[in-house]
Amino acid sequence: MGNADFGYPSKANGDNNGVQRVEVPPPQPFFKSLHYNLKETFFPDDPLRQFKNKTASRKFILGLQYFFPIFEWAPLYTFQFLKSDLISGITIASLAIPQGISYAKLANLPPIYGLYSSFIPPLVYAMMGSSKDLAVGTVAVASLLIASMLGSEVNATENPTLYLHLAFTATFFAGVFQASLGLLRLGFIVDFLSHATIVGFMGGAATVVCLQQLKGILGLEHFTHSTDIISVMRSVFTQTHQWRWESGVLGCCFLFFLLVTRYFSKRKPKFFWISAMAPLTSVILGSLLVYLTHAEKHGVQVIGDLKKGLNPPSITDLVFVSPYLMTAIKTGIITGVIAMAEGIAVGRSFAMFKNYNIDGNKEMIAFGMMNIVGSCTSCYLTTGPFSRSAVNFNAGCKTAVSNIVMAIAVMITLLFLTPLFYYTPLVVLSAIIMSAMLGLIDYEAAIHLFKVDKFDFIVCMGAYLGVVFADIEIGLIIAVTISLLRLLLFVARPRTVVLGIIPNSNIYRNIEHYPNANQVSGVLILEIDAPIYFANSSYLRERIIRWIDEEEDRLKSSGECSLQYVILDMSAVGNIDTSGISMLDEVKRILDRRDLKLVLANPVAEVMKKLDKAKFIEILGQEWIHLTVGDAVAACNFMLHACNKPSPVKEESEQWNSIV
Amino acid sequence: MGNADFGYPSKANGDNNGVQRVEVPPPQPFFKSLHYNLKETFFPDDPLRQFKNKTASRKFILGLQYFFPIFEWAPLYTFQFLKSDLISGITIASLAIPQGISYAKLANLPPIYGLYSSFIPPLVYAMMGSSKDLAVGTVAVASLLIASMLGSEVNATENPTLYLHLAFTATFFAGVFQASLGLLRLGFIVDFLSHATIVGFMGGAATVVCLQQLKGILGLEHFTHSTDIISVMRSVFTQTHQWRWESGVLGCCFLFFLLVTRYFSKRKPKFFWISAMAPLTSVILGSLLVYLTHAEKHGVQVIGDLKKGLNPPSITDLVFVSPYLMTAIKTGIITGVIAMAEGIAVGRSFAMFKNYNIDGNKEMIAFGMMNIVGSCTSCYLTTGPFSRSAVNFNAGCKTAVSNIVMAIAVMITLLFLTPLFYYTPLVVLSAIIMSAMLGLIDYEAAIHLFKVDKFDFIVCMGAYLGVVFADIEIGLIIAVTISLLRLLLFVARPRTVVLGIIPNSNIYRNIEHYPNANQVSGVLILEIDAPIYFANSSYLRERIIRWIDEEEDRLKSSGECSLQYVILDMSAVGNIDTSGISMLDEVKRILDRRDLKLVLANPVAEVMKKLDKAKFIEILGQEWIHLTVGDAVAACNFMLHACNKPSPVKEESEQWNSIV
Repeated sequence: MGNADFGYPSKANGDNNGVQRVEVPPPQPFFKSLHYNLKETFFPDDPLRQFKNKTASRKFILGLQYFFPIFEWAPLYTFQFLKSDLISGITIASLAIPQGISYAKLANLPPIYGLYSSFIPPLVYAMMGSSKDLAVGTVAVASLLIASMLGSEVNATENPTLYLHLAFTATFFAGVFQASLGLLRLGFIVDFLSHATIVGFMGGAATVVCLQQLKGILGLEHFTHSTDIISVMRSVFTQTHQWRWESGVLGCCFLFFLLVTRYFSKRKPKFFWISAMAPLTSVILGSLLVYLTHAEKHGVQVIGDLKKGLNPPSITDLVFVSPYLMTAIKTGIITGVIAMAEGIAVGRSFAMFKNYNIDGNKEMIAFGMMNIVGSCTSCYLTTGPFSRSAVNFNAGCKTAVSNIVMAIAVMITLLFLTPLFYYTPLVVLSAIIMSAMLGLIDYEAAIHLFKVDKFDFIVCMGAYLGVVFADIEIGLIIAVTISLLRLLLFVARPRTVVLGIIPNSNIYRNIEHYPNANQVSGVLILEIDAPIYFANSSYLRERIIRWIDEEEDRLKSSGECSLQYVILDMSAVGNIDTSGISMLDEVKRILDRRDLKLVLANPVAEVMKKLDKAKFIEILGQEWIHLTVGDAVAACNFMLHACNKPSPVKEESEQWNSIV
Repeated sequence: MGNADFGYPSKANGDNNGVQRVEVPPPQPFFKSLHYNLKETFFPDDPLRQFKNKTASRKFILGLQYFFPIFEWAPLYTFQFLKSDLISGITIASLAIPQGISYAKLANLPPIYGLYSSFIPPLVYAMMGSSKDLAVGTVAVASLLIASMLGSEVNATENPTLYLHLAFTATFFAGVFQASLGLLRLGFIVDFLSHATIVGFMGGAATVVCLQQLKGILGLEHFTHSTDIISVMRSVFTQTHQWRWESGVLGCCFLFFLLVTRYFSKRKPKFFWISAMAPLTSVILGSLLVYLTHAEKHGVQVIGDLKKGLNPPSITDLVFVSPYLMTAIKTGIITGVIAMAEGIAVGRSFAMFKNYNIDGNKEMIAFGMMNIVGSCTSCYLTTGPFSRSAVNFNAGCKTAVSNIVMAIAVMITLLFLTPLFYYTPLVVLSAIIMSAMLGLIDYEAAIHLFKVDKFDFIVCMGAYLGVVFADIEIGLIIAVTISLLRLLLFVARPRTVVLGIIPNSNIYRNIEHYPNANQVSGVLILEIDAPIYFANSSYLRERIIRWIDEEEDRLKSSGECSLQYVILDMSAVGNIDTSGISMLDEVKRILDRRDLKLVLANPVAEVMKKLDKAKFIEILGQEWIHLTVGDAVAACNFMLHACNKPSPVKEESEQWNSIV
C-alpha cells in the first residue's frame, strides 16, 4: 500500500474490517427536526425542564415562581438578609435621589419625575426580577435619547404637557416591546449588540452627556438641541459672554470632589459608601451654600419648587392617536432595547460573581412589566443602571429587598422632603451626571479590543465616533451594521487552509500554523472553515481552483510529482445548502476534466444527509468519502499513479483553452 | 496511564518527545494580515497573477486584453470559426427581432427600441465580454420591472417622451452601477442572490409576465398597471364583454405552435433551429394572415408604423435634474442587479460546459459599459438572456462574433425591413413572450429544493409568492431577507454535538451520527460547529452549561462516574471575537466553581492568536490545550480522580444556590 511514509497506522488499532465508513445518518421526520431546531432557537436554556413530571398544583407554583421569583426566595428570607438589604437599600437611595433628579433634567422632564421613577419600578422589579444585585432606576443615556428623539418633534419648553405625555407613551411602548421580546423568547436580539458595540456606544453616549452638562456648568440659558460635538461646541463658544463664573466655579469644585471620592472608593472598595454618599452630600452642601449666600440671585440656577406627594396616575396621559404616535413608538423601541441591553448585561455580570443564573428572557419580561406599570404611574424609562447596581453589590445586598428599601426611602422623600430641594443648584446635578458619565468611558476596554481584535475595535470606534459626531441613533446603526457585515463576511469569505501531516503521527493540520507539517506528495488537502452557503459558494469554487493552480505551479517549478488528488476536509463545514452542493458538483466536474480526483473527508451528519438527498454521493462515489483525512490519504496513496506521469487529458484541455 | 481503554496509541507512532503542542502562530504584522484579508475579500481569483514579472509593454497588452478580450482571441480567429458564428448569429437574430419588439412592448416602450437594443449593445459586448456563448439582448423580467417601477411615477401613454427618457436614464444608472461593482471588485454582492432566490424570483416574474399577456391575447384596451395576480384577475374578469375572440383564437394557435416546436427541439437538440426559427415564422405567418384577411379592422391590434433607420443618439435625453431622478436611479440599480445576475449565471453555466473561465467582475464591467453606451444610443437595459444564449450555444457558436453577426442582421432589418412589421399582430408577440416565460417556471428545481433543503424551498416560495401576490420588488426583498436571516441564524445558533470514541480507533465523532461511538467516562467532549462571535456567545454559554447539566443528570441516574472534564473540540471554530473570549472565560469560571476542568482541543491558528493576546491561554494553562481530542482525553485520563468520588465543592455551590 505504500502508506507507511504517511504514518497511516493501517489496521494498527485492531480494526477487523477496514476503515469505518461515513454513513448517511438515519432519516429524521421533518417535524422532529423542525421541533429540535425551533427548540434550539427559542428555548436554548430549556426553561420547561423543571416542569417535567410534576403534579398540576406543583406546576402552578413553579409557574408562579417562574414569573414572580419573589415567591421563590421570600419564604427563605431571614433577618440576617434584611440587615444587609437595609444598609444597601439606604445607600442606593442616597444615590438614587440626586441621580433621579439629574437624569430627569437630562430628559427635559420636570425633576420630580425622576423621583417618581425611583419609587414604583423598583417595587415591580423586586417581585419579578431574578437578579439579586440589580438596583432599578433611570439611566443617563436613555434619558438623553428620549430628549433628543422626542425633542426633535415636540419642544419640551413650549409644549411641556404633550412632551411629558409622549415620554410616558414611549416608556409604555418600550415596556411592551421588552416584555414581548421576553415572552416570544426573542431575547437573543440583544446579543446582536456585541460587547464592542456597547463599549463604543456607551463611551460615545457618555461623552455626549458630559458635553450637554456644559450648559449647566456654564450656567447657559440657551443651548443647542443637537447632541453632536460640533453643534455643542459651537453653542458653547458663540455665547462666551453668557458664561457665569459663579456657576462654573461651583461646578468644577463639586466635580472635583465627586471624582476624588470615586477614585478613593475605587482604590479601597471597603469605603464604597464614600463615593455612594458623595452625590447626596454634594446636593446638601450645594443647597446649603445657595441658601446661605442667596447665590440663586447671582446666576446660579436652582431646582425650585418640587410638588409634594406620591406618583399621580398617568394611564390617561398615554396618547395613542396623536400624530406623534410613530415617534413615541420608535423612541420606545430604541430606548427600550438600549436600556434592556444595559440592564441584562449588568444583571449577568453580578450573577457571574455570585454564581447564580440570570434568565435573559425572564429579565426582559420583568423590565417590560416594570416600564408598563411605570408608564401608568408617572414614571419614565427605567432599567438596571451599572453605577447604582455596583454600589448595591458593594454595599452587600442579598436580595431584591434592597430595591424595596430604596423605594420606601424615595417614598418618604416624596411625601415629606421635597421642599428641601428648592435651593439645590442645577450645577451640582450637572457635576453628578458628569462624574457618573466619566466612569462609563471605558478607554481601557477599547485598548484591549485594539490589542485582541482589530475588527471589534473598528466596530467600537464606529459606534463612538458615530454617536459623538453624528447622532446617538446613527452611532448605534453604524456599529450594528459593521458587526453584521463582519458575520456576513465571515460566511462570504471563509478561510481555506492547506493541511499537511505532522511528522510521526496521523494528524493533519494547517501547514502555516504548524510549520513542521509536511504536504503529502501528489495530494492537495484543503480544509474549509465555514458552512458552504450561497454567499460563499462562488468564492470557494474560485479559491479551490486557485489553490490547485498554485499547487501545480509550485510542483512544476520544484519538479515534484504532479497533483492527482484533492481532498476536502469537511470537518468544519457545519452545513451546506443547494448552492453549496452545486458548487461541489462543479468542482468535481472541473477536477474530472483536469484528471484530478475529488475526495471528501469527514462530512458531518447534516452535510452527509443533504449530499445524499441531492444524489451527490452517487456522483462522487461513496468510496471517495472518508472518515478522516488520514483514511482519505491512505486510499489515495493506494491508487496513486506513478510519479511525474504527464496527464494527457489535462494537456488537451489546456490546449483547448488556449486556442479559443 | 490507563488510556489503553480509549484506544490512545500512546507513542505508537514513534513520537519521541511526547505529544505535539498547540503553538501560538508567529505574530504577523498588522498590515500584512490586512493585505491578505483585503486580497481574499476583493481579489479571490487573483487577477493580477498573470501580470507578474512581465515587461511594461507586455503588461500594457495584457491590460488591454483584460478589458477588451477581443484582442486576446481575434488574432487566433479562423475561417472555421466564422462559419459556425455566422450560422449561430443568424439564428439568434431571427429570435432577437421578434423578442426585441415584444419585450419593448412589455416595458411600455415603442417597439423600435427593442430592435435598437439588439444592435449596439451586442457590439460592445463582443469587444469587452469574456463569454463565448452569451447572446446579448433585452429580457422580459427587467422590461416588466422597468414598466412597473417607472410606470408608478410617470404614465407611459400620457407622457411617452418623459417615460422614454427616464428609461434611458435608468439604463444609464444600471450601467454605471454594474461597471462600478465590477471595478470595485464587489461582484460578490450578486452571490447574495442565492440559487433558490433566483428560481423563485424568476418563476414568479415569469408568472407575472404571462398574466400581463392576457391583455394582448384577449385584445383588451384597458388593463391594470399593477402586476399582482389579484389586480390582473380583477382587470381580466371585470371586462369579459371586451374580450375579442379573433385575438384569442389567433393567440392560442400561435402559443400552441410555439410550445410544440419548443417541446420538439427539447427532445431532439439537433433540431434546435426549429424552436429558434419559430418566433420569426410566427411573426411572418401572423403578419401575412392579417394582411390577407384585414384582421386589423376586426379587433386584432397590430404593431403599425416602425421608423426606418439606425439608432438615433440619445445622450441628450438623459435626465439628471428631473424630480424623477431618484426613481430612475432606484429602477436602474434594481433592474441592473437582476439583469446582471441573470447574465453572469448564464455566462458561467455555458463556460462550465466548455471548460473555460468567466471572471464575474470583468463581466460586470462589460455589462456596465454595454448599458452606458446603450443608454446614449437609444437602447434600454440589456443583458445575456438565457433563452437566446442557449440557442446560440446549440447553434454551435465559437466566439462573440455571433453577437456581431446578430447586430449586423438587426442593422439590416432597421435599415430596410421595418415596414414589413406593419401588419404584425400584437397577439403573436404576446404568444412569443408567454412561450418564452413558461420555460422559466422551473417547478422541477423547486421540487429538488424541497427534497434537499427545506429552508432553501422556503426562500424560493417566499420569492415566488411575494412576486406573484405583492410586487416584484417585494418578492426579491423577502427572499434576500430570508436568505440573510438564515446565515445569521446559522451563526447565532451553532450546532454543538457530543463526541464519542469510535471503537478500535483514536477517532472522536458525533455520537448521534455514529451510534457505535462511545462516550468516555468522566469526560464530556463537545464540538462547536461555528465561529464564536457576539451573536452566539450567550447561546453557547447556556448550551454548554445545559449539556453539562444533562450529562450529569444522565450519569447520576445511571450510577456512572461523575463528570470531571469538559473538552471543547475547537476544530470547527474558524474565528473568535472578544465577546467569544469573554464567554470562554465565563465558562471556565463556572466550571471551576463546579469543580470541573475545561480543556480545549485543536484551536485553529486564528483562535490561538486571539486567545493568546487576550491572555486566556495563561488563565486556562497551556497544558490544557491539546492538538487532538485524543491527546486531550489521554491527558484527562492521566489525571482522572477515582471514580464516583463525590465532589465537595460542587455540593457546596449547589447549597449556596438554593438558599438565596
